[in-house]
Amino acid sequence: MDEQGHDGTGRVDLSFTVEEAQRTVRVPPGVTVFDAASWNGIAIDSTCGGHGTCHKCKVRIDGPSPITRHDVKTFSREQLDAGWRLACLVNATSDLAIEVPPLTTRPKAATVGVGRQVILRPAVQKRYVELAEPTLEDQRTDLTRLLDAIDDLEPVPDLHVLRRLPTVLRQADFKVTAVVVDEALVDVEPGDTTRAAYAIAVDLGTTTVVATLLDVTTGTPVAVASMLNRQQPFGGDVITRISATMLDPAALDRLRDAAAQTLATLADQVCTEGGVDPAQVYEVALAGNATMTALALGIDPEPLGVAPFVMSTPQPPDLLASELGLRLHPQARVTLFPALGAYVGGDIVAGMLATGMDRDKRTRLFIDVGTNCEIVVSDGDRIVSTAAPAGPAFEGGAIRCGMRAADGAIEVVKLGGADDPVELGVIGDVEPRGLCGSGLVDAVAELVRVGLLDASGRYVADDVAKEIAPSLADRLAYVGQERVFVLHRPAPDAEPEDCVVLSQRDVRELQFAKAAISTGWTLLLEELGLEHRDVQQVLLAGSFGSYLSAASAVRIGLVPKLPVLRIVAAGNVAGEGAKMALLSVRERAGARALLEEVTYVELSDRADFNDRFVDQLSF
Amino acid sequence: MDEQGHDGTGRVDLSFTVEEAQRTVRVPPGVTVFDAASWNGIAIDSTCGGHGTCHKCKVRIDGPSPITRHDVKTFSREQLDAGWRLACLVNATSDLAIEVPPLTTRPKAATVGVGRQVILRPAVQKRYVELAEPTLEDQRTDLTRLLDAIDDLEPVPDLHVLRRLPTVLRQADFKVTAVVVDEALVDVEPGDTTRAAYAIAVDLGTTTVVATLLDVTTGTPVAVASMLNRQQPFGGDVITRISATMLDPAALDRLRDAAAQTLATLADQVCTEGGVDPAQVYEVALAGNATMTALALGIDPEPLGVAPFVMSTPQPPDLLASELGLRLHPQARVTLFPALGAYVGGDIVAGMLATGMDRDKRTRLFIDVGTNCEIVVSDGDRIVSTAAPAGPAFEGGAIRCGMRAADGAIEVVKLGGADDPVELGVIGDVEPRGLCGSGLVDAVAELVRVGLLDASGRYVADDVAKEIAPSLADRLAYVGQERVFVLHRPAPDAEPEDCVVLSQRDVRELQFAKAAISTGWTLLLEELGLEHRDVQQVLLAGSFGSYLSAASAVRIGLVPKLPVLRIVAAGNVAGEGAKMALLSVRERAGARALLEEVTYVELSDRADFNDRFVDQLSF
Repeated sequence: MDEQGHDGTGRVDLSFTVEEAQRTVRVPPGVTVFDAASWNGIAIDSTCGGHGTCHKCKVRIDGPSPITRHDVKTFSREQLDAGWRLACLVNATSDLAIEVPPLTTRPKAATVGVGRQVILRPAVQKRYVELAEPTLEDQRTDLTRLLDAIDDLEPVPDLHVLRRLPTVLRQADFKVTAVVVDEALVDVEPGDTTRAAYAIAVDLGTTTVVATLLDVTTGTPVAVASMLNRQQPFGGDVITRISATMLDPAALDRLRDAAAQTLATLADQVCTEGGVDPAQVYEVALAGNATMTALALGIDPEPLGVAPFVMSTPQPPDLLASELGLRLHPQARVTLFPALGAYVGGDIVAGMLATGMDRDKRTRLFIDVGTNCEIVVSDGDRIVSTAAPAGPAFEGGAIRCGMRAADGAIEVVKLGGADDPVELGVIGDVEPRGLCGSGLVDAVAELVRVGLLDASGRYVADDVAKEIAPSLADRLAYVGQERVFVLHRPAPDAEPEDCVVLSQRDVRELQFAKAAISTGWTLLLEELGLEHRDVQQVLLAGSFGSYLSAASAVRIGLVPKLPVLRIVAAGNVAGEGAKMALLSVRERAGARALLEEVTYVELSDRADFNDRFVDQLSF
Repeated sequence: MDEQGHDGTGRVDLSFTVEEAQRTVRVPPGVTVFDAASWNGIAIDSTCGGHGTCHKCKVRIDGPSPITRHDVKTFSREQLDAGWRLACLVNATSDLAIEVPPLTTRPKAATVGVGRQVILRPAVQKRYVELAEPTLEDQRTDLTRLLDAIDDLEPVPDLHVLRRLPTVLRQADFKVTAVVVDEALVDVEPGDTTRAAYAIAVDLGTTTVVATLLDVTTGTPVAVASMLNRQQPFGGDVITRISATMLDPAALDRLRDAAAQTLATLADQVCTEGGVDPAQVYEVALAGNATMTALALGIDPEPLGVAPFVMSTPQPPDLLASELGLRLHPQARVTLFPALGAYVGGDIVAGMLATGMDRDKRTRLFIDVGTNCEIVVSDGDRIVSTAAPAGPAFEGGAIRCGMRAADGAIEVVKLGGADDPVELGVIGDVEPRGLCGSGLVDAVAELVRVGLLDASGRYVADDVAKEIAPSLADRLAYVGQERVFVLHRPAPDAEPEDCVVLSQRDVRELQFAKAAISTGWTLLLEELGLEHRDVQQVLLAGSFGSYLSAASAVRIGLVPKLPVLRIVAAGNVAGEGAKMALLSVRERAGARALLEEVTYVELSDRADFNDRFVDQLSF
């Protein structure tokens, strides 16, 4: 246990109450209450970016939360006693109940990503104007009249706006709101509608797609929804989906439709939940890997799937949301992130934006763990990136009892406790049904720690096991010819084949996956002339990475051997980056600039890759 | 008769033979053979712009054509005897048969408009490239690879191109032709297709729509077609069509459809006639007045039709041809001309381009005669323009025996000849059925000249008539209470009501029309501090203006009293301007710059307009 009261393992439940509505979210310990709220679409006042200086993110906490010097400055003794704290300074180390007051300020900035403060300058801009009516002395065209009244923007009108413009101006007595997205005048609405301006940030994952509806006038999230990508029937990973298009010429269109349906369903859902008219959603930011992006746009993905792994374009063009099947404002735009390579896509660029990889001066290692694992290293000056093919182990694939992180999945494993030699954390607190990625990493890390797995990744012999871990030795068993460790017995007399087990082959799968990843960052660190110990922060990103136990990740060598506090769960950084792009055109430009700033390192043609890989196999 | 052998009246027939095919066109005398060919889509070699310097526009002429010093330099004695001449130097003063040799050069320039030479730099550009195939050492994206190979253009790809790009590149072994329109990469075609690049120039008239298919690689016209605007059933002029949209909310969509059908029919026709695959037509330039443009785009035209006459935008946005219902290349673009005012539209801007109003240093007066008459004056430095409501007289409307310029229309009238006191030129050389605009102007001018109409526009008394014009006096008759002049009797004993006549009321209609126009140019000349005699050239534009007799126009005061040689039929300048915009992005930019360079003068709010108008009524 360190000074912050957590050891980098397990989970905490945070129960938020906002204006009578109650929601519980489950996050890794150590995440701030402010970040946990933000990632889950719960808005808390803030203008300083979570640095404890604006003193606006006031919440009332029921549960352990130390009082900081900023809290003392902000609250009275009575308030502190009643649990009032600044949300950005509370590290959630145990389950907490949090009361969030309604928003009081109209912010000029929003906090998103990993402690990134963004000055609000969304691409969606509204301007209310009251125009002088035309006369024979003033025959300026309707458009000129409107644009003359908007001095800070010079948008180009959509044809659709021009079609309606004469009628709208006259019906509204020349009192209208111009709606601008980036450089396009997308609508002219009667009256003053400046308060209603929304956008949707989408993390278009291969497995899960997450949409956040944002009020771009305040930077606050209004609703969040997620669902499985409807492309799942074509295969669980990008390679099987690319293969589908190679085998069947009709598959590309069907995959595109599936993406469109997924996006449309989520958009409907967040609008309904947020009580927002879809016609007031003017922009969508989409962060996805190169394959998901290509499939959503209907671009032939085949060259992404075969050597030499080539993308069609580094920067997909902006397009209309309607072209993606979205039923929002008819002229709503979609903005996409650039990609650095076929396997370091727009989701990673969004993640780099959200984590400030291009701004932070520290030496940092960013890892998005998944079937394809993307790795970025920055020394505060140069940035290098690569992709490592980790395989499906982390998503439960190729693992005997593997499953996705859903109810019944073991996500936390602690071995050798005095009371309970096999202590399991199970999603949904139900009977365990299998093992998800973080549970797999935990299980292997614990088995290595207690000595039941040797450094080469082999289960020790039964007699050795009895000697070094007597309380666990009876868990070692056989399924057929293969050794397994029984994590959970559904009944006292259940046969090993009916139990949730970790097999020798499972351990090998994880070894290969972690070796691919650690070879990746080892080579990137070398590229910058750095040692492991130079790394000041490791960011574990993505839906799986964020839920990985930092201690276990260190133990099995998935990340450099560093104090767990240097290892940070970064959350859904692709979605956070998408939010940033919506809230700030400057940040969006920063994302595009990354194309020039980041060097992509291709590992598959390196002569020394295989040697390095073998070096990294052992625990 | 002047030194060029014509007096500014009548018509000549030019019969062109191009590779066995024969076509006859009818033009006002004095037009050069080169211009007459060009306006009618007949390509003659040229690189100098019709200035007699390139010596390429060789044709063989059967009929009177003086030999110039340039002809002597270009042709042998035998060739000159055989009729070989430079087409740009032959003024057609009588009927001619012209043999046009096949094109021999691949020109770098084309001659269009009124003697305008245009260096070919079309917006449609094709580039054939043979790309290195990607490797692990060269993982540039498909797009980057392509764009790196095209060093002089930096187009932005359409999504549709990206969708096909990976497949096309690989199927074509990375040997492809990039198709660029303006700043958009609209296609990537397998192999070398650089020779096939077409565009369509459209003069979108209220009455007639003319389309010219251009080969933009050579600047030569491939086919021309024209037809009545299918919006005709909604009314013959812009005001009745605008009214239609005000009375019936569904009318705007139906007018838009009618425009789309007209354009689509013409596009099909020119592609069929030219033997060109519509998918190889990548751009359309559309020149129309503000109302025709608004209706084609589906923009509510109501404010154009009621004071203070306001347009929706000075520069309609570029759009896809498919949005106008055209079935060309799926990503073909449409470029539109800016408009200076509700009644000085894109057709006039195109006409100003075609006549070089912004480049020529002479003091020139440009008049496009029609229901709405547009007038532009340039002193070689400043340019001013206005619109004059001439009414329908010139198009045969509100005229007792008025009709369009179709078979049976009297287009030329000469009175008082020794052999034949009433000599008529009739379109189609058939029995006269009525009187078109140029015939109307001729008839009035001749009646004024012989004295049967006095300066106030009244028919003289019968006894006066018998005295001053004995051979014509019996043509004066009555229809009801109204005096008429009988131009044509279908039978010797036909009653006046069954004859083609010019009534007193018809004369009044023309008086009002010409007064509106001459008030317009009088005020514009004053605006620039000029006298009538300062005008060095009058350009009569448009389908009607070009066929007007210069002498008659001078006689009735429709144009300033100048030698007829200074009065030039400019042809379909809107269509010519559209061609120029297609062939040269520099000229296109010049057209857009006219928005800033031309001062629009609104006449309807001038206190002195009515006084001036009355001054101009007399002949």
